[in-house]
Amino acid sequence: MSFNTFGHLFRFTSFGESHGAAIGCVVDGCPPRIPLQAADIQKYLDKRRPGQSRFTTQRQEPDTVKILSGVFSDERSGGQLTTGTPIMLLIENVDQRSKDYSEIKDKYRPGHAGYTYDVKYGLHDYRGGGRASARETAARVAAGSIARKIVPGLSVRGALVQMGPHKIDRARWDWNEVDNNPFFCPDPVQAKFFEDYLDGVRKAGSSCGAVIEVVAEGVPAGLGAPVYAKLDGDLASALMGINAVKGVEIGDGFGVAALSGEDNADEMRMGNENKPVFLSNHAGGILGGISSGQPIVVRMAVKPTSSILTPRKTVDRHGRDTDIVTKGRHDPCVGIRAVPIGEAMMACVLADHYLMHRGQVGEGTAWPFKPGT
Amino acid sequence: MSFNTFGHLFRFTSFGESHGAAIGCVVDGCPPRIPLQAADIQKYLDKRRPGQSRFTTQRQEPDTVKILSGVFSDERSGGQLTTGTPIMLLIENVDQRSKDYSEIKDKYRPGHAGYTYDVKYGLHDYRGGGRASARETAARVAAGSIARKIVPGLSVRGALVQMGPHKIDRARWDWNEVDNNPFFCPDPVQAKFFEDYLDGVRKAGSSCGAVIEVVAEGVPAGLGAPVYAKLDGDLASALMGINAVKGVEIGDGFGVAALSGEDNADEMRMGNENKPVFLSNHAGGILGGISSGQPIVVRMAVKPTSSILTPRKTVDRHGRDTDIVTKGRHDPCVGIRAVPIGEAMMACVLADHYLMHRGQVGEGTAWPFKPGT
Amino acid sequence: MSFNTFGHLFRFTSFGESHGAAIGCVVDGCPPRIPLQAADIQKYLDKRRPGQSRFTTQRQEPDTVKILSGVFSDERSGGQLTTGTPIMLLIENVDQRSKDYSEIKDKYRPGHAGYTYDVKYGLHDYRGGGRASARETAARVAAGSIARKIVPGLSVRGALVQMGPHKIDRARWDWNEVDNNPFFCPDPVQAKFFEDYLDGVRKAGSSCGAVIEVVAEGVPAGLGAPVYAKLDGDLASALMGINAVKGVEIGDGFGVAALSGEDNADEMRMGNENKPVFLSNHAGGILGGISSGQPIVVRMAVKPTSSILTPRKTVDRHGRDTDIVTKGRHDPCVGIRAVPIGEAMMACVLADHYLMHRGQVGEGTAWPFKPGT
Amino acid sequence: MSFNTFGHLFRFTSFGESHGAAIGCVVDGCPPRIPLQAADIQKYLDKRRPGQSRFTTQRQEPDTVKILSGVFSDERSGGQLTTGTPIMLLIENVDQRSKDYSEIKDKYRPGHAGYTYDVKYGLHDYRGGGRASARETAARVAAGSIARKIVPGLSVRGALVQMGPHKIDRARWDWNEVDNNPFFCPDPVQAKFFEDYLDGVRKAGSSCGAVIEVVAEGVPAGLGAPVYAKLDGDLASALMGINAVKGVEIGDGFGVAALSGEDNADEMRMGNENKPVFLSNHAGGILGGISSGQPIVVRMAVKPTSSILTPRKTVDRHGRDTDIVTKGRHDPCVGIRAVPIGEAMMACVLADHYLMHRGQVGEGTAWPFKPGT
Repeated sequence: MSFNTFGHLFRFTSFGESHGAAIGCVVDGCPPRIPLQAADIQKYLDKRRPGQSRFTTQRQEPDTVKILSGVFSDERSGGQLTTGTPIMLLIENVDQRSKDYSEIKDKYRPGHAGYTYDVKYGLHDYRGGGRASARETAARVAAGSIARKIVPGLSVRGALVQMGPHKIDRARWDWNEVDNNPFFCPDPVQAKFFEDYLDGVRKAGSSCGAVIEVVAEGVPAGLGAPVYAKLDGDLASALMGINAVKGVEIGDGFGVAALSGEDNADEMRMGNENKPVFLSNHAGGILGGISSGQPIVVRMAVKPTSSILTPRKTVDRHGRDTDIVTKGRHDPCVGIRAVPIGEAMMACVLADHYLMHRGQVGEGTAWPFKPGT
Repeated sequence: MSFNTFGHLFRFTSFGESHGAAIGCVVDGCPPRIPLQAADIQKYLDKRRPGQSRFTTQRQEPDTVKILSGVFSDERSGGQLTTGTPIMLLIENVDQRSKDYSEIKDKYRPGHAGYTYDVKYGLHDYRGGGRASARETAARVAAGSIARKIVPGLSVRGALVQMGPHKIDRARWDWNEVDNNPFFCPDPVQAKFFEDYLDGVRKAGSSCGAVIEVVAEGVPAGLGAPVYAKLDGDLASALMGINAVKGVEIGDGFGVAALSGEDNADEMRMGNENKPVFLSNHAGGILGGISSGQPIVVRMAVKPTSSILTPRKTVDRHGRDTDIVTKGRHDPCVGIRAVPIGEAMMACVLADHYLMHRGQVGEGTAWPFKPGT
Repeated sequence: MSFNTFGHLFRFTSFGESHGAAIGCVVDGCPPRIPLQAADIQKYLDKRRPGQSRFTTQRQEPDTVKILSGVFSDERSGGQLTTGTPIMLLIENVDQRSKDYSEIKDKYRPGHAGYTYDVKYGLHDYRGGGRASARETAARVAAGSIARKIVPGLSVRGALVQMGPHKIDRARWDWNEVDNNPFFCPDPVQAKFFEDYLDGVRKAGSSCGAVIEVVAEGVPAGLGAPVYAKLDGDLASALMGINAVKGVEIGDGFGVAALSGEDNADEMRMGNENKPVFLSNHAGGILGGISSGQPIVVRMAVKPTSSILTPRKTVDRHGRDTDIVTKGRHDPCVGIRAVPIGEAMMACVLADHYLMHRGQVGEGTAWPFKPGT
Repeated sequence: MSFNTFGHLFRFTSFGESHGAAIGCVVDGCPPRIPLQAADIQKYLDKRRPGQSRFTTQRQEPDTVKILSGVFSDERSGGQLTTGTPIMLLIENVDQRSKDYSEIKDKYRPGHAGYTYDVKYGLHDYRGGGRASARETAARVAAGSIARKIVPGLSVRGALVQMGPHKIDRARWDWNEVDNNPFFCPDPVQAKFFEDYLDGVRKAGSSCGAVIEVVAEGVPAGLGAPVYAKLDGDLASALMGINAVKGVEIGDGFGVAALSGEDNADEMRMGNENKPVFLSNHAGGILGGISSGQPIVVRMAVKPTSSILTPRKTVDRHGRDTDIVTKGRHDPCVGIRAVPIGEAMMACVLADHYLMHRGQVGEGTAWPFKPGT
């Protein structure tokens, strides 16, 4: 969690600008002997890839990933395995229409990072947003696809639960619907409505925000490193660090403020397998920064993209007042593509904490206690 | 940000359990030659200290801090200064009524970390919540009081903006009112209402949640370390890691989902001092993970404490179903005391990023560009 | 390995100056449920403690350690156990004769860190060397005594193998002799000689250097994190970072330069237990930064203390030429007390890598392969 | 300093195996606005490149570096500048004769990391040594070439000072001679002798060790982060972590053991520029882990390569005794090519500490004190 490196034991370091030669990341600390093919990664990159419907940017990037190191196959291994050494994932940039960005070379887009990058570094690669572009998130998705293989039995799924001011009806939640619409929306009725709604936004040259929910199931109890690398703290950092995210909540999130202690308590009863079961999940699967064994539930709020057709007041690099209109190819609702990115970051945090827990405490957890202990 | 160490360059490592001998922290990486007396720290500890009104736990802890290392004074220094070496802050525990906690020795409080600590570590110091107790946050406040001295011109202030389901009226916001009521509430009318409301909660043996807002002013533009230690990512981690926090948002936070790109854009115009000014602050002072120079505005949701008088279903350490009632001394609304803690964490994150920025880029920022550059 | 924090997963953060209120450290990342009493730590502190013979400084410090957090005992545990949370170890300073140090308040001792601390920080606690004092190493020894409990079957032993220009005769090496003389010397004949030799040095107000060897046995094969946290790299850092150490070597060390490839090769044959055995140990137990299962053998060179009675040319804080004589209580051969410190650092590095290996790879190692794999 | 990431603020993460698709590294934390062309890096890679004389491996690798990210050029910048974002350096592998390595697929070379990699990870890419190959050091040299640009006025130079048992005559030391012979040897007479000596070693199918000295001049006083990231500790780690290095010493190194305190003291006198000068440099430029402003002098011992033509006893992956002869292309004295690698690691450590110092303390140092301070 320093500069461009994410994680403690399961780590990845990303690089690349939107319109540079390539983007990618180096995954480090991955356990050895995990089967890994480029196709395992490509599957998730394809989910995030732009240009797949009229609701995302029309930039055509195949986002083909190559594994340049960290895997090996010989006659004993039965296929390509990770070796425990750094896994280099390279994605070449293909469709860079740099001419589209001549307008923003000197003018700052309100709500965009161009101004703060210039203030901090004194220059930045403004083409397509440079390092602050959503293209960087392809590296996260690639790393996340490896992370998914580390925690046995883990399932991480995301869904769009709000677009603009319009929430889904949670009673209609169906995970199977998520892949049936271009919004990763689990409510088929609302998904239909979102088509019209977003068409309107897009045609107006405007943009809208969204809320994404990510759920991890099969998370072992006991993951988390109190007190400054708590599981929820690391998740908050991982999700808030995704481009355009302005809020993160876990379990009932901001709703907890309005709950009484009685209502917020997730009561417990002994279940099968000699393990406790919880009768509710207001906590979103995390207590005291440590996973409880319940599903981990997080939500993040994604702001509307700042690239819009309506002129906005701004300044230029020379310190002059001006107006700006952003014409390039952009997502009317970047929140949509945030779904696979949120899943990836969740998977990375869980893999990292799985390894950290195993390091400090060993395999498995200590509870329930055996008689006499 | 590993285990019990917070931060990258400005770091602190905390220790201690609620009913052990002492709590405290070691602050490392602090710049040298900063005037520092115990009284500078005590002032903020006193704000967090329990037992100051009928609305917080009646545990009586003086929370007297001692500085055991890292400061020096000689005839040249004109008073006690930091030396750049580790500053050890020790707070002895005084009022440990361990008998109050006999009930929770074997039973897990729903919503409390006792269960997850046991699952993870195989044991925990259950007295007063042990390491998961809110007492650990005294170390954060102590570290934060030093952090406040690092960024020149920095002001960090917090306020309670919601208690239970009741929000303040932001039109009545007056920072001067924050110290005039036991709730750190900037709205004097609502503060009056909160007295009655919380008395009701307290007398019912119940508890309620809250939302806290923390605002930092005087933050230089350019702080933040993209992309995995972004300023907002680190703030999210720092606040989500505070006991009982379940949600964090920056600027408009979850409200951005409902905004259009036009409304969300913080337009810019050149102001005095040859610097741009923003015409709004939906972004909460952070763009692309880097501070913009605007006030940084964050909010966090604090859940109701899980220690309540109403019996709740639970299990015990022996794997048996049972019920629990928590009788000890507790806060009916832990959110109140979260105000100084949130301020402290904000100050620590900003100090850390101030030093990191200075390390990578040097003093000051690179913008506005001089003519010809 | 940042500032005053050592280690990756098994970490400790030390604090304190020679003549401040106290020194100590916070040990973090320790596995839970390890039996730990203050006496377990005191045993090793006593070995490092000054004033035990006429050959070490006459400062009288009991170096009594208190455990302030991170341990717990209840009716189930059968004694005090670590809890997996930070273990705070406090050692109060008792015998601070600050008057002894008036001379060095303004003058820099050649070979001492006073000058560089002042250049770096603009001030330092000069009393007794402040943070640069050998007293800081008590914290290392305390942490090391906990580290020793983490790797099952580990033995770490150190010995003085050279004092001034005089080496021991390795043919007479007897570990049992190490505790029979005030020098931790495994050669009883040379130990006798060292008494006279060091008496001469001491009476002349001079000082001498030494070489220390530390040997770890029972180290599992497979520990090490290539390529920038190699086991040998971390050991080199840990030992070179001990006060007054100027050289570190592993196995044959600088002797390898003169070896041929044939002679340097540690040949292998299958031994009992279906494991290879090595026919020699030029490598000192580490190949490619990873432990081979052989004993790990390191040596470090310790310079003569810079506090001597012969006047030396120097400058003062006001930028004036002057001479200095150091009168306080000092070790004529600081290398002696470096033996328990070197052992401690070796133990800490091994514990840290043991946990890191377990984190990335899981319990045990992967070799020898079972048939068909 | 974790796994495959080096450094604290100036960091690089390397990847790649000897016979994989590519090697390289991601440099992170580099200050912005530093002029950087591929040619600046290539210059140093060419120095390390194999196949340049009959005394290094005949593998023909052009080691052409490409900069894939982190630099930008526009009409204002006057050339390509670093942007402060990650700099991706890619070096494609070209001359992989994998057939040469069929022998080592199953047999372990004594003294080589193949065995320990297999024990640790359960498999490894054995072709050309895989990750443990000296090829990885090209990434270090590439990162080092950027590091050299960070500390103003810094000069880092290395030289071979011993080959096999034969030392140079330091009285004949001439930096200008270093580039006049294939050994980086500063003693032209001994360089002549080394030609014959190494020809003999090479023709015998044997190998020999070496000692390399690296000297940094122009290092500002005050760099170093006591006490667990001391400048000497980090240098020791950086150099000991280079393939085949078994010993590291600073200043007089192991020679200090034989010095008296009088002789070891580097006396001081006020020089010009109102700064002290030292009358000797036994300390090698570092006191208490902090640079003194003198040249930093380190030496490292490099073992003979384990790839030799004389059969050695070993075991294979199936646990059977066998013999091995290594036929591929190898360096008879890997120490030669360690010179540019040692320089690179020195430069990286100094750049890292330069930024860390600037972060904690600000620009410049605090001494000498102005009147009244």
